[in-house]
Amino acid sequence: MTISDLKNSYINKRLTPRELMKQIKERIDANADNPIWIYTLSDEELEPYLKNLENCDALSLPLYGIPFAIKDNIDLKNVPTTAACPDYSYTPSESAYVVAKLIEAGAIPVGKTNLDQFATGLVGTRSPYGACKNSINPEYISGGSSSGSAVSVALDMAVFSLGTDTAGSGRVPAAFNNLVGVKPSKGVLSTSGVVPACRSLDCVSIFANDTQDARVVFDVAASFDENDPYSTEMPSTQNSALSSFTFAVPKKEQLEFFGDSEAEKLFYKSVESFKFIGGVAVDMDFTPMLEAANLLYYGPWVTERYVAVKDMIENKPDSFIEVTKTIIASGKTKSAEDYFNAEYKLKAYKRQSDMLMKDIDFALTPTTGTIYKIDEVNADPIQLNTNLGYYTNFMNLLDFSACAVPAGFRENGMPFGVTLFSDAFDDRKLMQIGERYMKKDSNE
Amino acid sequence: MTISDLKNSYINKRLTPRELMKQIKERIDANADNPIWIYTLSDEELEPYLKNLENCDALSLPLYGIPFAIKDNIDLKNVPTTAACPDYSYTPSESAYVVAKLIEAGAIPVGKTNLDQFATGLVGTRSPYGACKNSINPEYISGGSSSGSAVSVALDMAVFSLGTDTAGSGRVPAAFNNLVGVKPSKGVLSTSGVVPACRSLDCVSIFANDTQDARVVFDVAASFDENDPYSTEMPSTQNSALSSFTFAVPKKEQLEFFGDSEAEKLFYKSVESFKFIGGVAVDMDFTPMLEAANLLYYGPWVTERYVAVKDMIENKPDSFIEVTKTIIASGKTKSAEDYFNAEYKLKAYKRQSDMLMKDIDFALTPTTGTIYKIDEVNADPIQLNTNLGYYTNFMNLLDFSACAVPAGFRENGMPFGVTLFSDAFDDRKLMQIGERYMKKDSNE
Repeated sequence: MTISDLKNSYINKRLTPRELMKQIKERIDANADNPIWIYTLSDEELEPYLKNLENCDALSLPLYGIPFAIKDNIDLKNVPTTAACPDYSYTPSESAYVVAKLIEAGAIPVGKTNLDQFATGLVGTRSPYGACKNSINPEYISGGSSSGSAVSVALDMAVFSLGTDTAGSGRVPAAFNNLVGVKPSKGVLSTSGVVPACRSLDCVSIFANDTQDARVVFDVAASFDENDPYSTEMPSTQNSALSSFTFAVPKKEQLEFFGDSEAEKLFYKSVESFKFIGGVAVDMDFTPMLEAANLLYYGPWVTERYVAVKDMIENKPDSFIEVTKTIIASGKTKSAEDYFNAEYKLKAYKRQSDMLMKDIDFALTPTTGTIYKIDEVNADPIQLNTNLGYYTNFMNLLDFSACAVPAGFRENGMPFGVTLFSDAFDDRKLMQIGERYMKKDSNE
Repeated sequence: MTISDLKNSYINKRLTPRELMKQIKERIDANADNPIWIYTLSDEELEPYLKNLENCDALSLPLYGIPFAIKDNIDLKNVPTTAACPDYSYTPSESAYVVAKLIEAGAIPVGKTNLDQFATGLVGTRSPYGACKNSINPEYISGGSSSGSAVSVALDMAVFSLGTDTAGSGRVPAAFNNLVGVKPSKGVLSTSGVVPACRSLDCVSIFANDTQDARVVFDVAASFDENDPYSTEMPSTQNSALSSFTFAVPKKEQLEFFGDSEAEKLFYKSVESFKFIGGVAVDMDFTPMLEAANLLYYGPWVTERYVAVKDMIENKPDSFIEVTKTIIASGKTKSAEDYFNAEYKLKAYKRQSDMLMKDIDFALTPTTGTIYKIDEVNADPIQLNTNLGYYTNFMNLLDFSACAVPAGFRENGMPFGVTLFSDAFDDRKLMQIGERYMKKDSNE
């Protein structure tokens, strides 16, 4: 299911949104053993959205009749937002700014998806609603924190979905479910109506089957929101992809696959594919990115997670699952001195990384070095989670745009993914290059 | 003494830099009772600078033979930097980035000027080297923290000078000594080689007799410094001043003159002058600016001052003057939670103030509501200092560019000043409008 296929079917009267939603409901029911959804809209709740489309022209709305899933830390009007913490639950009277934009453009909300509690995690197992299983092999993790949003698209229960991405939550589940995951430049997608993780870093992200779909969604969603102080306008002129380009790859000794030799091979294969479509690969010293990544959970930004849920962690600590509580509570003891010392370091890393990125069009890394089974993560929940953030944790701290794309499969069928990243506001450029890469790969 | 007058004299051989420096030395000696200088260069120390100019063409260097003063928290090669704290003193082997640029352009360093210790204050009295006296009436404060830098220009001991401006230190002394004070957009003048006050907010500032001189200095000094992580490049396209423009003035009930009715009259006279030169005045709700100003000393940014001198305040607390120690030590107890709560507030104020500024060309305020005598400040050092920051404290937190210009005199001869402020990178536009205003005023 892609946006253009569906729109063609609608225009040619081969399908109606109502019929599609019926099929989707059947798929949801058939997968009820996988805790992908925290909430799905009832027929009564869907009716106004479907009714509304009947009065619209399929050609006039960019997302006419396109079903989408919403991570359950993003508000949908009149439906509970839980952030995977039932005690936190509230029912908003308005949709999040981005959700409202998508619905205005014709998209149909299917429901609210499971996540690592308070978007804290990259595994998809840290939820009282259960560990969301991988769409390809249920023994494996789905990745997180936007677990259900990725799996719902991978299993055709939605054409695209919204996640959030503070530390990798919109990219890791894309890699693990063979999807595109767009982590927009900070501020380009409004976070009004989104439960904060690290408010100064949070991004709303997009999962889709391909970059064309992601671009259509991005074009609708990227809209300046006066009421979100972190919202920024895309600059009027943006870089676009050139037919020949230079891309950087971390130095060999800085690449980390945690023993996953198949992932390593797939990464180098991917490098070759990017060369094939016009790229010149250069080595990059990845040190400032790795140093910045370390600041995210060991530095003061974890205090933002504490500030976001302070009342509950102080007064109802049992509402949290254990690992999440431990991480978030660690934010309480940081000082303003810690903050500024970390900011000064981060500024230096940003300068260093900008200097490294200056003469290249984008950098290419694995999205994650490896993948784990649910049992493995349950046995070692902190360290394996940390491993998964090796290539993702620095991205928002250093204010890069990023696009995760599928990059082949291991012999056991589990997918591998790579991430393109570049300066802020290079979102569309990255999606264009990602598109070329995916076309090349699918033509092989 | 202006840059163009001096350059003309040099070109027409009516004067040499060496002769000028001799006159300046005499003026310095004649004012030895006013602690303007912490250090002046000896003839031996000046010699290399003068020698160097003898091999250069006066036409080829924008600041050929122009003497300038340097606030003593900015490094000059081989001369001590004290930040007005003798125990802190060190002798740098390199000049600050900006100082080096000015010297390369032909400027001659006269010496290092007195300041409120660690640039903490707006009064000019908080120095172990003595209270710097006002250039017009020595009973009055010079303003601070860049006290000596302003007074040295006002008394023709330098043609321009460098100050720093975190909370108003480059504007308040301009107003009190009838000078132009340019507070550049954050990052446009490098802070490499500058003793930090609030490192994330500090700006190097420029004092000059008129805006033309300030622009020449700005054009030399505004240069991207790769080694300063806070350095930013000016955008290639910048707004310039239009012949007709709209400017905002705080609502009457938000204007504060602390009982100084002459200042109030001078301010409204200034508003009329800006109308006369093509401006349309509109009222502005100044609330977000005032709220942001409150965050500067009561919020977590004071922790930056603590971080900057932590070793000394912990191990040699007697090295500080009392009021400075009290202020800086208050930064120790702030938490990262305090920081993020303040950042969220500040982001909201920034959005609100950007919305207010959106349709205007600049905002106009008094630079300070009033002026005080040295005795008055000594009797009430904290509150009167706070009063002086009413129109200045918010500027760097909200990332505006600002230009303070003279705006007439009270009956007792003490000067009044107004400040134009606008979005980041509007520096040149503000200087252009300031120039028109000053020309109009001097033609009256």
